[in-house]
Amino acid sequence: MSKLSPEQLEARLNDLSEWSLSNDAIQRTYQFDHFSDAIAFVNRVAEYAETVQHHPDILIRYNKVTLTLTTHDAEGVTNRDIQFATVADDFLAART
Amino acid sequence: MSKLSPEQLEARLNDLSEWSLSNDAIQRTYQFDHFSDAIAFVNRVAEYAETVQHHPDILIRYNKVTLTLTTHDAEGVTNRDIQFATVADDFLAART
Repeated sequence: MSKLSPEQLEARLNDLSEWSLSNDAIQRTYQFDHFSDAIAFVNRVAEYAETVQHHPDILIRYNKVTLTLTTHDAEGVTNRDIQFATVADDFLAART
Repeated sequence: MSKLSPEQLEARLNDLSEWSLSNDAIQRTYQFDHFSDAIAFVNRVAEYAETVQHHPDILIRYNKVTLTLTTHDAEGVTNRDIQFATVADDFLAART
């Protein structure tokens, strides 16, 4: 899977408005009411990560979770990252 | 609970050899065989964090977990952080 061009990436991020580009990765911070909600979200993301064998960096700071996605083999952001971000956002939406 | 003095902190860190001081926090990175082991460890740490109502920053990078501990109210490292670090290390030891 090859790295998205800047134009492709810009187009994809239009549909992922909460995500931003950070070096060769995309990043979003989710905020929850409680630490326990943050951990539940992390577990859901982790389970999905194992299923697709694609693992974001996950930073938990109390009730905030930051996911950072990149594809190391491609040295940049690929459709795998976009797909993962979309699913993570769906997990959030499914909670509410 | 008040911030430990540099001398107190140095003495405490003698018993926590894998931990290092990073600004006004203590930090350790644990390495596991698999992502799933890292997540299991995070869940154990998270459960303890809820019990004692003291929440480290937790960074998961595939099979590595970094805990960063500080006591915001004291603007530095206190015995709460030392206690937490000791328990987290015990969780690791209990796995093997």
